[in-house]
Amino acid sequence: MADEPLVIFTPSGKRGRVPSGTPVLEAARRLGVDLDSVCGGRGICSRCQIDPGRGAFPKHGVTVTEQALSPFNEVEARYDRIRGLKPGRRLGCQARILSDAVIDVPPESQLHRQVIRKSAAERVMAMDPVVRPFFVEVPEPDLADPTGDFQRLSQALSAQWGIEGLRADLPVLARIQQVLRKAGWKATAVVRQDGQGAPLLIDLLPGLLEGPLFGLAIDLGSTTIAGHLVALDDGRVLASSGLMNPQIRFGEDLMSRVSYAMMNEGGAAEMTDAVRAGLGQLAQTLADEAAVAPARIVDAVIVCNPVMHHLMLGIDPVELGQAPFAPATSDSMTVPAPDIGLGIAAAARAYVLPIIAGHVGADAAAVVLSEQPQNADAPVLIVDVGTNAEIVLGDRSRVLACSSPTGPAFEGAQISAGQRAAPGAIERVRIDPATKEPRIRIIGVDLWSDEPGFAQAAATTGITGICGSGIIEAVAEMRMAGIVDASGLIGAADRTGTARCVPQGRTHAYVLHDATDSGGSLIAVTQGDIRAIQLAKSALHGGARLLMDEFGIDRPDRIVLAGAFGAHISPLHALVLGMIPDCPPDRVTSAGNAAGTGARIALCSRAARAEIEDQVTRITRVETAIAPRFQEHFVAANAIPHATDPFAALAETVTLPDVAFNSGATADRPRRRRR
Amino acid sequence: MADEPLVIFTPSGKRGRVPSGTPVLEAARRLGVDLDSVCGGRGICSRCQIDPGRGAFPKHGVTVTEQALSPFNEVEARYDRIRGLKPGRRLGCQARILSDAVIDVPPESQLHRQVIRKSAAERVMAMDPVVRPFFVEVPEPDLADPTGDFQRLSQALSAQWGIEGLRADLPVLARIQQVLRKAGWKATAVVRQDGQGAPLLIDLLPGLLEGPLFGLAIDLGSTTIAGHLVALDDGRVLASSGLMNPQIRFGEDLMSRVSYAMMNEGGAAEMTDAVRAGLGQLAQTLADEAAVAPARIVDAVIVCNPVMHHLMLGIDPVELGQAPFAPATSDSMTVPAPDIGLGIAAAARAYVLPIIAGHVGADAAAVVLSEQPQNADAPVLIVDVGTNAEIVLGDRSRVLACSSPTGPAFEGAQISAGQRAAPGAIERVRIDPATKEPRIRIIGVDLWSDEPGFAQAAATTGITGICGSGIIEAVAEMRMAGIVDASGLIGAADRTGTARCVPQGRTHAYVLHDATDSGGSLIAVTQGDIRAIQLAKSALHGGARLLMDEFGIDRPDRIVLAGAFGAHISPLHALVLGMIPDCPPDRVTSAGNAAGTGARIALCSRAARAEIEDQVTRITRVETAIAPRFQEHFVAANAIPHATDPFAALAETVTLPDVAFNSGATADRPRRRRR
Repeated sequence: MADEPLVIFTPSGKRGRVPSGTPVLEAARRLGVDLDSVCGGRGICSRCQIDPGRGAFPKHGVTVTEQALSPFNEVEARYDRIRGLKPGRRLGCQARILSDAVIDVPPESQLHRQVIRKSAAERVMAMDPVVRPFFVEVPEPDLADPTGDFQRLSQALSAQWGIEGLRADLPVLARIQQVLRKAGWKATAVVRQDGQGAPLLIDLLPGLLEGPLFGLAIDLGSTTIAGHLVALDDGRVLASSGLMNPQIRFGEDLMSRVSYAMMNEGGAAEMTDAVRAGLGQLAQTLADEAAVAPARIVDAVIVCNPVMHHLMLGIDPVELGQAPFAPATSDSMTVPAPDIGLGIAAAARAYVLPIIAGHVGADAAAVVLSEQPQNADAPVLIVDVGTNAEIVLGDRSRVLACSSPTGPAFEGAQISAGQRAAPGAIERVRIDPATKEPRIRIIGVDLWSDEPGFAQAAATTGITGICGSGIIEAVAEMRMAGIVDASGLIGAADRTGTARCVPQGRTHAYVLHDATDSGGSLIAVTQGDIRAIQLAKSALHGGARLLMDEFGIDRPDRIVLAGAFGAHISPLHALVLGMIPDCPPDRVTSAGNAAGTGARIALCSRAARAEIEDQVTRITRVETAIAPRFQEHFVAANAIPHATDPFAALAETVTLPDVAFNSGATADRPRRRRR
Repeated sequence: MADEPLVIFTPSGKRGRVPSGTPVLEAARRLGVDLDSVCGGRGICSRCQIDPGRGAFPKHGVTVTEQALSPFNEVEARYDRIRGLKPGRRLGCQARILSDAVIDVPPESQLHRQVIRKSAAERVMAMDPVVRPFFVEVPEPDLADPTGDFQRLSQALSAQWGIEGLRADLPVLARIQQVLRKAGWKATAVVRQDGQGAPLLIDLLPGLLEGPLFGLAIDLGSTTIAGHLVALDDGRVLASSGLMNPQIRFGEDLMSRVSYAMMNEGGAAEMTDAVRAGLGQLAQTLADEAAVAPARIVDAVIVCNPVMHHLMLGIDPVELGQAPFAPATSDSMTVPAPDIGLGIAAAARAYVLPIIAGHVGADAAAVVLSEQPQNADAPVLIVDVGTNAEIVLGDRSRVLACSSPTGPAFEGAQISAGQRAAPGAIERVRIDPATKEPRIRIIGVDLWSDEPGFAQAAATTGITGICGSGIIEAVAEMRMAGIVDASGLIGAADRTGTARCVPQGRTHAYVLHDATDSGGSLIAVTQGDIRAIQLAKSALHGGARLLMDEFGIDRPDRIVLAGAFGAHISPLHALVLGMIPDCPPDRVTSAGNAAGTGARIALCSRAARAEIEDQVTRITRVETAIAPRFQEHFVAANAIPHATDPFAALAETVTLPDVAFNSGATADRPRRRRR
């Protein structure tokens, strides 16, 4: 009808005519405008706040009078008095449209508000969590209608929110009678709608829920368990924390844990208990840190490699240790949170991302979800560095994935002075090519060691060891300074021209830091450390190379370093070390903890879960463990940066000194003979 | 095509033409004939045995030659050698149809075999359990297809049995890899298909399952928990057992248990633990008795009243104790069996029948399922006698239900010499109207006490007390013999003419059995016993009367006594006592444990579950607790048989003596006055 007022919503631009007197919230619903409401239009949740426009809007062809909306009413005045409304704001459920109006929906009033993620593959994500609060008014029982309270709650959710066929676990059912009576048959139903069966009542809270609900995004690694506590209304991270995986005591890498399970009766169950205890501890830490009641944490997403996946779920990983590496189950899983040790809302479920293959896990799936190689115009190589590295290569045409057992050297383990990334750890290293003298930076201090005030600033923590990014930079710098040759040998003092090269048995070590005079520590990079790093980086490079063979390219268009640790790796040093394939250094970027980000994305968006479930079925899985060429690639990658690839792109930026310390390769030292 | 062989299946009469060479099993499937198979036609399960006909079948218009079926083959010969085939029998998956054939499917080869139940409402029930075994061959994993074992199992079940979207609990998932490898990728999947979400993998067994799967049908009463172990292939009962409900220690009747929950912090949880322990013990006893592995018990059905329902599920029953008696949930429930204490297959689910109202439980629903009042031509009254009695009245037009708190007197509690129905308990009583001398029978002895050999036979157990049916007969016989008057008073010896009436304080007792001379027991019916029985029977009669008011009738067409105990009640004595409304004695029948039968029906048939879920929504619930006329009916029913109803139908069979022992009503004894 032409005499009905015209309403235009911004920023969506949706417009239409509604009968005079229609509440703005109702108009938004009719026109498909995304305007939030938890209380369903009862004027108590304030989620539907809107900004009414005034004056002429030539673009929309309307002029809005002061009387376009009904006057500020009692409900709004009361809300403004108690909680405060921003100037000009109205409650969408109270303000009624009387004549042509332009209504702006501010971002915080959008249910599916958009969150822009900054990463190599920048993307916009709509909030669409699977667990949401719904305020309901439930009819009281009477003798004429002797149905259960749960049935009346279920009918109310159907009538008021269109949620059909609610189900609930026994412990939640056991609480609803009390909760419904506590707040006069008004309550907030926390409902999970994940498309896996009927909607599930996670919790029922008396009256209107204050504040948001929360979820956990967990990246369960072989060495570290990292997690974020995320608000499910806008996706913000309230707390982030991590802890060592308590399974470390059963073996540092995945295969040693599989062996432990094979060799020890009940070994798998022991490791399951350990990792679940770790998950529980992490959840508790995050809840404490953000001062959030664990019961308000109503969803969780977990990404992990297949071995951790099986151990967490209580499945013996033995089959993952032998060809054909068949997982017990590869699809995404939804399991009761308490079953895997998470002490959050008792009825909460944890969503575990699908496994790509027996050696390529849900963590790789999460990296794909975060970095979106399937949408890249040219082949992008994504390397998630960890004890077990996930490597993905792809573009619009196809996506390949593999994993490679790098071992824990990149995380500072198996390194003589290695340590976790903690205050006091050397994280950055520079070596002057002329003097061969090092400069260092340690975690917790913002100065280089040659800057004034460093010694004082470092005094609180001391200089305690080398963390993963520190050892990578140290070895790469040693190579650039001519202290280490292409084969990985550290030269003696007389060959390198620095007294920092000290003999150690039959090999040499390079002293990075010596505080032994003042009773402090001696931190050196030993020949053994170099060998450990070479093994790790060869595995990584070999895996990437295998994917490039399969893809039919010699060099990726760009490289993304992922993983909590990947964020700290200097692209140039990674290239000098040859842990990644040759590439112009400015085409190597860091994506931070992409697996963790993928977990957060899946936590915030039901669509993202569906997307990755679909995507994993399209990924071509490559098994390094049985690929004949992997061994060949591994051996060639042992050199720094590489035995056969000249690293031509890198050479345009850096010229590596042509030194060789192998006794057989130089004439001025007699070759030692083993007896 | 006319030259294709014609095949006629009996007893179904289904017929059709199939290509020559079609296996009988395949022909049965095409023609919709019910022929069982667990192995899917691989010649190993033998479930598809058939009896081929030979010779002329004028009725069907065919003559069957000796060559109608392919010759007995190796698979059949091997099966016959190892297991034995009945003469003439063939395996339906091996025998191929070569020319016109008549094939009989013996009852044991019918998947949905029919079981005829004998009861007042005789009915035929088709076996249709929700959990069934399916033999599958699962493709082995290979590197080219790195999906999980579970996914391949799921695909195999889809391809081989049409089961789509399988899901499994974690503990089952954790076992499948080992099971699949154990028997060369051949296994029996035990799958639950109950229409509540996707099919659920209850268990996976290596190779072909030997023997049937089992289920439990449990009638969880306030006083007794009774259960049957049932084979899910043909519905036969392998073991039946019962135990006292361990909740008895918290109160004998339901309202005292609700009070216990209200008065004691954690009281409800204590009672939940107690009843779950009882359920666990019962399951164990039944499994032991039938020598069945608990893991082979893969389904359970539970019927109970609303208070037991809530306590079993861990829900505080407090709301059931006060108007409007709202249950927490009233729909049928499917819960993990271990959650309610049942130590059967870990992934098994228990199905709890729906509640009719706050006071009318799943046990009443089970009675309806068993007795089918909704299909009766004339109003049938069903009385399930127990501590809490369920009463149902209905015909094709409508069905009404209520419950009435009779208390435990009918089960021998609150009776001075009362005891459980066990060997030695007096279960039947006859009193000679002339001599006033009693004859008794005890449980465990098939003789009356005046028959030769009784004393000797009774010596092993002794005569230990009176059970429920015994006290009902005793009181009714005392009324018929003129020892008790209509008001329930026992007369003194001088009024009744028997020395068996002995004074006891200000009242009298009637001695049923006196072995005190020989150091044995004295068993008498005291005035207190009569009062306890009067209270119980008034509640029962009052509830029935209320339903008749609502239905608009004065007398039901027939009465069914149900309940484990109901089966032992003599209809005539129940009428004399007035525990049921007046009715010709030959119109009163016993249906045994109708609630337990209902549980068995629901256990064996998915359709029956759907039927009762639909039926409960049509039942009109009547609340005795708030009906104003209930109190009036209760008072009028206190007399034996009744104060206002002349029991005219009963009077055609039995004439009750017109005695009155109230002192005020007779002139020859001075009225006592209380001081």
